[in-house]
Amino acid sequence: MQPNFKKFMLRTHTCGELRIENLNQKAELCGWVQRIRDKGGMIWIDLRDRYGITQLIFEEGKTSPEILETARTLGREFVIKATGVVVERLSKNDKIETGDIELKVEKIEILNPAKLPPFLIEDDTDGGDELRMKYRYLDLRRNSVRQNLLLRHKVAQQTRIYMDSQNFVEVETPVLIKSTPEGARDFVVPSRMNPGEFYALPQSPQTFKQLLMVSGFDRYYQIVKCFRDEDLRADRQPEFTQIDCEMSFVEQEDVLNMFEGLVRHLFKTVKNIDLQEVPRMTYADAMKYYGSDKPDTRFEMKFVELNHLVQGKGFQVFDDAELVVGINATGCAEYTRKQVDELTEWIKRPQIGAKGLVYIRYNTDGTVKSSVDKFYTEDDLKAIAAAFDAKPGDLILVLSGKADKARKQLNELRLEMGSRLGLRNPFDYKVLWVIDFPLLEFGEEENRWFAMHHPFTSPKPEDIPLLDSDLGNVRANAYDMVINGTEVGGGSVRIFQRPLQKRMFEILGFTDEEAKKQFGFLMDAFEFGAPPHAGLAFGFDRLVSLFGGAESIRDFIAFPKNNSGRDVMIDSPSSISDLQLKELSIDVKI
Amino acid sequence: MQPNFKKFMLRTHTCGELRIENLNQKAELCGWVQRIRDKGGMIWIDLRDRYGITQLIFEEGKTSPEILETARTLGREFVIKATGVVVERLSKNDKIETGDIELKVEKIEILNPAKLPPFLIEDDTDGGDELRMKYRYLDLRRNSVRQNLLLRHKVAQQTRIYMDSQNFVEVETPVLIKSTPEGARDFVVPSRMNPGEFYALPQSPQTFKQLLMVSGFDRYYQIVKCFRDEDLRADRQPEFTQIDCEMSFVEQEDVLNMFEGLVRHLFKTVKNIDLQEVPRMTYADAMKYYGSDKPDTRFEMKFVELNHLVQGKGFQVFDDAELVVGINATGCAEYTRKQVDELTEWIKRPQIGAKGLVYIRYNTDGTVKSSVDKFYTEDDLKAIAAAFDAKPGDLILVLSGKADKARKQLNELRLEMGSRLGLRNPFDYKVLWVIDFPLLEFGEEENRWFAMHHPFTSPKPEDIPLLDSDLGNVRANAYDMVINGTEVGGGSVRIFQRPLQKRMFEILGFTDEEAKKQFGFLMDAFEFGAPPHAGLAFGFDRLVSLFGGAESIRDFIAFPKNNSGRDVMIDSPSSISDLQLKELSIDVKI
Repeated sequence: MQPNFKKFMLRTHTCGELRIENLNQKAELCGWVQRIRDKGGMIWIDLRDRYGITQLIFEEGKTSPEILETARTLGREFVIKATGVVVERLSKNDKIETGDIELKVEKIEILNPAKLPPFLIEDDTDGGDELRMKYRYLDLRRNSVRQNLLLRHKVAQQTRIYMDSQNFVEVETPVLIKSTPEGARDFVVPSRMNPGEFYALPQSPQTFKQLLMVSGFDRYYQIVKCFRDEDLRADRQPEFTQIDCEMSFVEQEDVLNMFEGLVRHLFKTVKNIDLQEVPRMTYADAMKYYGSDKPDTRFEMKFVELNHLVQGKGFQVFDDAELVVGINATGCAEYTRKQVDELTEWIKRPQIGAKGLVYIRYNTDGTVKSSVDKFYTEDDLKAIAAAFDAKPGDLILVLSGKADKARKQLNELRLEMGSRLGLRNPFDYKVLWVIDFPLLEFGEEENRWFAMHHPFTSPKPEDIPLLDSDLGNVRANAYDMVINGTEVGGGSVRIFQRPLQKRMFEILGFTDEEAKKQFGFLMDAFEFGAPPHAGLAFGFDRLVSLFGGAESIRDFIAFPKNNSGRDVMIDSPSSISDLQLKELSIDVKI
Repeated sequence: MQPNFKKFMLRTHTCGELRIENLNQKAELCGWVQRIRDKGGMIWIDLRDRYGITQLIFEEGKTSPEILETARTLGREFVIKATGVVVERLSKNDKIETGDIELKVEKIEILNPAKLPPFLIEDDTDGGDELRMKYRYLDLRRNSVRQNLLLRHKVAQQTRIYMDSQNFVEVETPVLIKSTPEGARDFVVPSRMNPGEFYALPQSPQTFKQLLMVSGFDRYYQIVKCFRDEDLRADRQPEFTQIDCEMSFVEQEDVLNMFEGLVRHLFKTVKNIDLQEVPRMTYADAMKYYGSDKPDTRFEMKFVELNHLVQGKGFQVFDDAELVVGINATGCAEYTRKQVDELTEWIKRPQIGAKGLVYIRYNTDGTVKSSVDKFYTEDDLKAIAAAFDAKPGDLILVLSGKADKARKQLNELRLEMGSRLGLRNPFDYKVLWVIDFPLLEFGEEENRWFAMHHPFTSPKPEDIPLLDSDLGNVRANAYDMVINGTEVGGGSVRIFQRPLQKRMFEILGFTDEEAKKQFGFLMDAFEFGAPPHAGLAFGFDRLVSLFGGAESIRDFIAFPKNNSGRDVMIDSPSSISDLQLKELSIDVKI
């Protein structure tokens, strides 16, 4: 790494580099005009590049008239080169690292003029979403967006450092693969050389990483683009990035330790946070206590089931309910009637769909009041309060109905209350493993079983007998990592023996022929000496956005697509020529 | 990076780990059965994993009968777990790192049996190409192939280490982009959500990296998949990997220095080779002296032009030729008539297409003989020999005809002679920059100008006036890195001003409308403050294969496609369902 890298022909320093130690040195800077202050006799210009901002100064009488004239023609976002001498500032700026100095300009060159940008290149911009997407290359100039991408780079770097240190081999798996009907929709690519045939873009490198284990690669990883042609919810992208990993000769415990290590390493090196040991929660407990397989554990507010306390007291709604379940919104007893009504309306919205909300107010004076006082004595209510460990000043919120629905609704309410109570600080990180997922879930509509993770996930050995008798209760060696209520990663111990894989495909309704056509190569591979293996994948976009304390992944992707899957900057997708269609042996049919 | 990573539940050590220091320790190993030697009273098994081979020993009388029995049921490529005690070997094997010890097995478990593989899992395999591709997961078990992929990983690692050290930011650019008719053919992806419209897969992230420069990222890199739907020559792949880079506020010199630094770093860290300063050659010289823009400089054998020495002597063939040009095959004067005839036939093959070959033999006795003695005196021939600095024992080979053709043919002959003379050792690395490429080349068939690199390459400032008068002589600030006669990287200083980019599109025959439709966003971007910038891309597959001393890139790609663009292992591309076609609003039309 010897050669003279300091030889940047156009500049001697970056805009973030000069310090008081450089006093009286000559310097050449290049960058963008961030701001101009023209006070008549003096002109100051903030010159910006990726590394920082340096103030340029022009002074009538001292700066040559031609240069002053040029300086006065500059506009925001002009690209210039300024040559001058580093001088000490009269009024220093301790908010920027170059704040002690300024460059007394002796020569200036306009490298490229700029039209006025359609929005402000500032942290607080006046540009709307649509406009910023169209001019994404300008949006990326904003400090906040650039910092997001630098953060992304850092997380990728540190991921690789950790994985390398643990002897993982980075192997690139193919992007042009084969379409499989299972799971979400594939993007397909017509093959010109094989008319009528199509490649598919991978939803994940799942089968390839398993084949790499069969090949003996032992430890594989890749930071890799994946693709899903789904309807794009608010925060999905048709192309997204995974940290994809697989290990051989391991059990679940090894995988959990290894990737807890990765996340610990990332928190330490990227955020300087010492992560505690990551707690584990079974799927069953997650559903029971949080109504979600990705509980937000930044705050307690656990579910308490109340059937035994509230049923048989004449309140029909509770008596008829499969489940009566509530949370304790600590300190909310002071909520006004209006506030509680508003909460009730909130939870009755179609998106959540609860029928109603029962509250029990544990007043600060020790009395207990509820919206169902008619049916319950004060003792009844106190017994309920006790079940929540409620204290005077708390507000208990109760939902009821079908168990699944009630839990789902209460999960929403819990999260909402967490937010209202300020318990969901994005920079307060709580990491959790959710384990022991069910292997299968039943699709009522389709009237068949689906793999909860994917068809390659292994049942727990002790639950294998249940495959013949009780599919719904077969647990998988599958695990998710959840951070602050968001699933950031998931994986499983895989099936590695052909007979079990064959059985799994049968359960999922594949005919022998279908299974062979789509995954024959994998089942064949299992017969040539496949090792026990397991792995997981992290959603890289999501992980980075969590590190950035943001909700949306979009600002952590350099060139994201909008909710219709369009890149409005390059105007893609777009039509292609008839000639191109003909060469690809396809026709458009709308 | 604290947790207990040594906790591999299924093994205590890898098969490459145990040494004499581990004597008498208990160990659990997992791996594949590489070889079994059953000498009746003793059985030895070589157990293999990614890290090495450890010998297992079973001894009648000492090993329990049940374990012996199990050992005797094992076959090649069975996956087993063996528990035992490390003992010293009687006859040591200094070819493997574990060769001083063996594991006296006390317990054995078959984790997965294996059918007999269709070819030998050995360095010298008996499997043909087609079979090895179909069972690629078995081919990848072979040491040589695994080493190739480990090498690839190392080159990627070291590339990142260097780029990171030089402040480059890794930014992921999108894979679903927009089709452009310029250049090689795009793969396209129908958009389900935008019926009748298509994404395209990038042939390179060219426009995006330029936009990142406009965004002020200053230094960008990415190790990235690119796609080209071309007819696949012997050593092309429809998907391939680039090290893609771009820098702002630099000139050509900076780029050459920076990436010479990268290559130097890679040679040092991966191959432990100290690379000398990389010489530079203009495109004009490369063509004149080597007949190629990617000369193999492992050996001299430069072209010498002979028109002034050979024309006007009555030899019609030379007199009519635009160019008479030859090379000196040093030390080949002893070539028999048969050998020279065979060379002549070789060069007359349709792939090369020369009309004939003239030779001048500088005999060891000092006499000079040629195939055209009729027309040239011995003095004439000696003058020619002198032009080559030929010495007794040399053989001069001369071609003639249209200049372009003769050069191309002589380039082939030169490379062939280099190979025959053993001058092209794949581990003797000669790195070269070829610079000053022409900006444009004329397509005779299409009767128009094409960009030699791509439409974003900047002409040399001093040649800009020629854009109006002499397109063929406009030189570009474009450069290729050539290693051992192979182009491994190329790039250019880019156009960064709208008017020049517009002019360039005009020259290339774009209408205003076409230019706007396809690259409007880039030309717009140039108006909002684009910095001067330049970059380059390395062919990563090619670079790695050169480091591996191999000619083909295929064995450095985990899952390559064959010459028809097929993955024969997963049988892709393949047909998709009518339902899928309907959802994508396309029809197959063969």
